[in-house]
Amino acid sequence: MSVYDRLRELNIELPAAAKPVAAFVMAAPGGNLVFVSGHIARRDGKPFAGKLGGDLSTQEGKAAARSVAIDLMATLHEFLGDLGRVVRIVKVMCLVNSVPTYTEQHLVANGCSELVLEVFGERGRHARSAFGVTQIPLGACVEIEMVVEVA
Amino acid sequence: MSVYDRLRELNIELPAAAKPVAAFVMAAPGGNLVFVSGHIARRDGKPFAGKLGGDLSTQEGKAAARSVAIDLMATLHEFLGDLGRVVRIVKVMCLVNSVPTYTEQHLVANGCSELVLEVFGERGRHARSAFGVTQIPLGACVEIEMVVEVA
Amino acid sequence: MSVYDRLRELNIELPAAAKPVAAFVMAAPGGNLVFVSGHIARRDGKPFAGKLGGDLSTQEGKAAARSVAIDLMATLHEFLGDLGRVVRIVKVMCLVNSVPTYTEQHLVANGCSELVLEVFGERGRHARSAFGVTQIPLGACVEIEMVVEVA
Repeated sequence: MSVYDRLRELNIELPAAAKPVAAFVMAAPGGNLVFVSGHIARRDGKPFAGKLGGDLSTQEGKAAARSVAIDLMATLHEFLGDLGRVVRIVKVMCLVNSVPTYTEQHLVANGCSELVLEVFGERGRHARSAFGVTQIPLGACVEIEMVVEVA
Repeated sequence: MSVYDRLRELNIELPAAAKPVAAFVMAAPGGNLVFVSGHIARRDGKPFAGKLGGDLSTQEGKAAARSVAIDLMATLHEFLGDLGRVVRIVKVMCLVNSVPTYTEQHLVANGCSELVLEVFGERGRHARSAFGVTQIPLGACVEIEMVVEVA
Repeated sequence: MSVYDRLRELNIELPAAAKPVAAFVMAAPGGNLVFVSGHIARRDGKPFAGKLGGDLSTQEGKAAARSVAIDLMATLHEFLGDLGRVVRIVKVMCLVNSVPTYTEQHLVANGCSELVLEVFGERGRHARSAFGVTQIPLGACVEIEMVVEVA
């Protein structure tokens, strides 16, 4: 089943790719790898602000991470032209806007990782780091970047 | 001297490779690079929790970083089958669970970097970033990821 | 126009490349990529300490990020021998030493990104992540690392 069939089955429609809010691009190639910029969580077209362990629960953070994964796929789709060119989602780095006592960043990051696995199957089996940061641009609750191998 | 001879000389026995606590894998290939997931510090088989500058000293953090390096080598050994395939440890990122006034993350990270140099010699000369984060999954005091070039 | 002509036009003289403060190197190759270590902000040859949202303004942080970009270029120049070998600045990661309420890390990071674009032009169009961290080694206000594709 193609990646696009899988997205349809999951009722996911890729949004328009995000535009950078500053002096960079949303994805850049390095040999056969593509480095995708950190994408921040959005809701209703605006930054989805908040802190895990403060005003947001793990479930809310996980849902935010899932929505970032969709935005990352939209960026990849625009960059590659065809998500079928993805050889592997190699690496995910998930930053979680956290109060100093919050320790479930891995569960938040699963919102992204689980969707990547559902959509890309074996090609979605990625290495990952997740950790809590003090803040994220525009106050966003989650920021995620990816490294992807492409054909 | 082989990497395994060197480990023996240092009285280091590689443990069983860690299993991911969530929806990802511990290492994934991207061309000739291997991206190794963030590994958290463990003690007696459980997450080694604590904050540098709070309940943990720089020496304790450095020892934790050294133990994470051993776990990273165990993962690499399992992933590659043979650590002799390592061309170079290219990059280390060391996250240190820190109170806001703690500024010795580089000394903590040396616990990992020095062991990598001892074990891999010239092939262990890596680029590195180290910094203080608000929290780490399960409260761990240190989390380290690696990028490795392989033959 | 060559990268060096561009630097001259901008009145930028590359300083001596930084030396690592610990057990690592300032840049390491991985295939056609070069991973450049996290470089901390310096002023008058010493770490430029401070927190954004605390004792430092966004403009001061942005200027610090620009100075780190110059230090990163100095490291690349020493590592490559010739900055003309840069195929692309692929990825920038900008860590901003932040109080928990400071949310303009992307504007700080622009100090680096804008200079990279000015100096490298099309080859400077990079992916990026920027976020706020609890601390940085030696109290520095900004730390930046890069991934670069080289010929």
